[in-house]
Amino acid sequence: MSKYFALALGCGTQNRNDEWLEVYFPDPMLNPDASLIEAVRDEVEYTGGNIAIELNHRQISHIAREWRDAGNEHAASYAVAMQETRRPVVLVILETDAAPTSTPETYLKLHLLSHRLVKPHGTNLSGMFPLLPNVAWTNEGAVDLDELVERQLMARLDGRVLSVDSVDKFPKMTDYVVPKGVRIADTSRVRLGAYIGEGTTIMHEGFCNFNAGTEGPGMIEGRISAGVFVGKGSDIGGGASTMGTLSGGGNIIISLGEGCLLGANAGTGIPLGDRCTVESGLYITAGTKLEVLDEKGALVEKTKARDLAGKSDLLFRRNSLTGAVQCVTNKSAIELNEELHKHN
Amino acid sequence: MSKYFALALGCGTQNRNDEWLEVYFPDPMLNPDASLIEAVRDEVEYTGGNIAIELNHRQISHIAREWRDAGNEHAASYAVAMQETRRPVVLVILETDAAPTSTPETYLKLHLLSHRLVKPHGTNLSGMFPLLPNVAWTNEGAVDLDELVERQLMARLDGRVLSVDSVDKFPKMTDYVVPKGVRIADTSRVRLGAYIGEGTTIMHEGFCNFNAGTEGPGMIEGRISAGVFVGKGSDIGGGASTMGTLSGGGNIIISLGEGCLLGANAGTGIPLGDRCTVESGLYITAGTKLEVLDEKGALVEKTKARDLAGKSDLLFRRNSLTGAVQCVTNKSAIELNEELHKHN
Amino acid sequence: MSKYFALALGCGTQNRNDEWLEVYFPDPMLNPDASLIEAVRDEVEYTGGNIAIELNHRQISHIAREWRDAGNEHAASYAVAMQETRRPVVLVILETDAAPTSTPETYLKLHLLSHRLVKPHGTNLSGMFPLLPNVAWTNEGAVDLDELVERQLMARLDGRVLSVDSVDKFPKMTDYVVPKGVRIADTSRVRLGAYIGEGTTIMHEGFCNFNAGTEGPGMIEGRISAGVFVGKGSDIGGGASTMGTLSGGGNIIISLGEGCLLGANAGTGIPLGDRCTVESGLYITAGTKLEVLDEKGALVEKTKARDLAGKSDLLFRRNSLTGAVQCVTNKSAIELNEELHKHN
Repeated sequence: MSKYFALALGCGTQNRNDEWLEVYFPDPMLNPDASLIEAVRDEVEYTGGNIAIELNHRQISHIAREWRDAGNEHAASYAVAMQETRRPVVLVILETDAAPTSTPETYLKLHLLSHRLVKPHGTNLSGMFPLLPNVAWTNEGAVDLDELVERQLMARLDGRVLSVDSVDKFPKMTDYVVPKGVRIADTSRVRLGAYIGEGTTIMHEGFCNFNAGTEGPGMIEGRISAGVFVGKGSDIGGGASTMGTLSGGGNIIISLGEGCLLGANAGTGIPLGDRCTVESGLYITAGTKLEVLDEKGALVEKTKARDLAGKSDLLFRRNSLTGAVQCVTNKSAIELNEELHKHN
Repeated sequence: MSKYFALALGCGTQNRNDEWLEVYFPDPMLNPDASLIEAVRDEVEYTGGNIAIELNHRQISHIAREWRDAGNEHAASYAVAMQETRRPVVLVILETDAAPTSTPETYLKLHLLSHRLVKPHGTNLSGMFPLLPNVAWTNEGAVDLDELVERQLMARLDGRVLSVDSVDKFPKMTDYVVPKGVRIADTSRVRLGAYIGEGTTIMHEGFCNFNAGTEGPGMIEGRISAGVFVGKGSDIGGGASTMGTLSGGGNIIISLGEGCLLGANAGTGIPLGDRCTVESGLYITAGTKLEVLDEKGALVEKTKARDLAGKSDLLFRRNSLTGAVQCVTNKSAIELNEELHKHN
Repeated sequence: MSKYFALALGCGTQNRNDEWLEVYFPDPMLNPDASLIEAVRDEVEYTGGNIAIELNHRQISHIAREWRDAGNEHAASYAVAMQETRRPVVLVILETDAAPTSTPETYLKLHLLSHRLVKPHGTNLSGMFPLLPNVAWTNEGAVDLDELVERQLMARLDGRVLSVDSVDKFPKMTDYVVPKGVRIADTSRVRLGAYIGEGTTIMHEGFCNFNAGTEGPGMIEGRISAGVFVGKGSDIGGGASTMGTLSGGGNIIISLGEGCLLGANAGTGIPLGDRCTVESGLYITAGTKLEVLDEKGALVEKTKARDLAGKSDLLFRRNSLTGAVQCVTNKSAIELNEELHKHN
């Protein structure tokens, strides 16, 4: 096992003050071979720890040569390619998975997620927000908001349109990486830092925030909030909602197990186990009081949804004649009583 | 009446293996004049059936000349235009509306829908999915996913952004055709193959899948799933949902008649007749048990929503004091009993 | 105080008939210094009232010189910039806030809103719809719909894509102005004419129509309909809906006061006062009958939601066991009775 957490060579965009707006890492490496770092240690004056070093052309050439000599043709090929660019190039070495301290480090961690090298919650993102500048994402690339007005005016006078497609701290993932085996109908709705598992289809109404995603396969037509992870074979219906820790879910981390279905326009504020269904149009929050029914449909007890968090084989519905929210199970009353009260 | 189903000349994009990624048909013809096909039969060695033939420049010129000589200046003008392009050009002749067998055929059928030449369910799309390659739709056109990584890297190094706006089997309709008399606020949400009737406004939250659409006029602020058709003067409120046969609706084909209103954040899993309303926030599925009320508001019986499928002049609501889903009608109890049980 | 309502110099796009499709005003002025108008009165033959005058190069140069001589370097700098463009340039002088009578006037008023110079409902937009042409908004700028087919064909043959991103009367706001201190994750969902207050974050599922917006700060993950204004510190959850006067809300103008929360997939058809909450998944319309509970949770009376319009410190929820919609207050039964009936 490598003693290093991550390594990547990237190129990106800086504003007029030479501050990073974004960085693109075509080939981020998790647990890289230590020899790749040893080979460049002197050239970039690396003395350990987590660093982001802007490279000059001499240094890039050096890295390309050293990595090739070290027999890592793949990594070397990216260094070779970057010899030719006029864009600023940066080398990020993360000895540990400590909280990021710079824009390039943060971008690398978001890349690790979207390249499926780490899963949501699998890398330390503490304190990342202030490190991500708010950027105008345009058809001419990332533009600093302080430089935007002039750029827009100049483009207009010149007969062009500077299309500002997003004003956000996060770019859309697909401009950085399209992981294998996915469909994403409207890519503006998947942020860099999303983890989209193989076999996932994200329809137009789907959405995935950073540090969140799907194991795949699955059909996602609703919103996966920051921090939420969706298990294998689970579907999220059109307009369905998962509460994020950033958006009202409090400190409960929401997840869906395998084989779940969140119906259209439904929502959940509790984590679901495997093979759970929330019927279309029903929103379950942690505080929702509901009737728990046994396998025969008999009422076993009334409880709050939070007591059912993470349990499997549940169907949540609102009885359309009584208006009561119900949790239908496939267990006997005795089994349910045991399960619901075993931690009491 | 023509003995042929369809005819079109298109140009498109191929990957490095000369496989079609997409085809643009500026002037698809339904039931074309047989003389147009006879005029080119020998040149393209057409021996009948449904075919997609890639054309060389000589063949395109031949077609332009023959169609002009045959007096069809309109069709000829497109052939003339295509003489000049370096993009691959394809002629598709569909003798019958059989299931498509190639990418160009499938694209032609999607064009027929979006050009309003056939209505949803009006052309045979069986087996189309494997014929539609999953494509990266970018600001530089359609890109094969296997070629994307290199294209993205090259663009970045060159200081450009290769914006990947969608990764999907379907392109957005408006890059192929904008039918007359419509507004579509966010075109990324209407797939090629949608049928958008004259007088339709699709707001930002609206969506329309392929083989689905609106008769028009209408205001669409919710989602029209694959296979769903919305009648004249019907509105779909913000975030409202229609269940598609691909997305949980099972084998019931959903439709809305004329003059319907699906309220904001509402949904339907049954087809609606004319002048039906589903109140904002209420989701009706086929299995929803509900109270049927007569013209005086008296309960006539309890039934499932599927028994009301396709009936007209219904208002679906959830009684906000009792929680019961209700179907309010303008009929007497006697009339309702007859209507509900006539097929029993 | 200026005797004039507004003044602006813009450049824009015209169709082949020299009709305006859109106008960009980089520096719209509310209540401009009268001297700016006096300085150009003779040159543009301004005789008073509200006018939009297309300028020739001589006139633009004259304005640049006069405004500089008048000591208004800022305004002059934009005139200087416009001397160089080949795009049509227009000067709009609005002596009063009368209903607009031309496309440039309408665009100026939309700019005033998005530049935060006037608040929603703060300028007269009567009769504006027919003055806004329906336009294809493309990567090559605004295109007249009658000219689109030819442009699309030519682009295709040439190997380019003419991406039609929207077909609408309104462009997206951020192509005209990005107000200070905002994030807008998917800018295609905010129309020119929106008022987005400082500190507002509009997430991917957020939306804001024209003549509507936020005081800021706030987190907007749902839809702000035309005419709706959201007070300071109020959040709109994912997929939540506000009824607009154009979309079913009738003649009640919806607004949210300060510190409100509209839960995910919730909705309101009544204006809310301060510190109100509508729980996730609940849609309140003006006609919703509900139970009003006092501070101890006791039922005080049953009423319609419209009777609670604009009142503060209310929590709207649906009792998840009885199905009844309830309004939970922090007041005693006596206080509530007084408040609910004081206008009876």
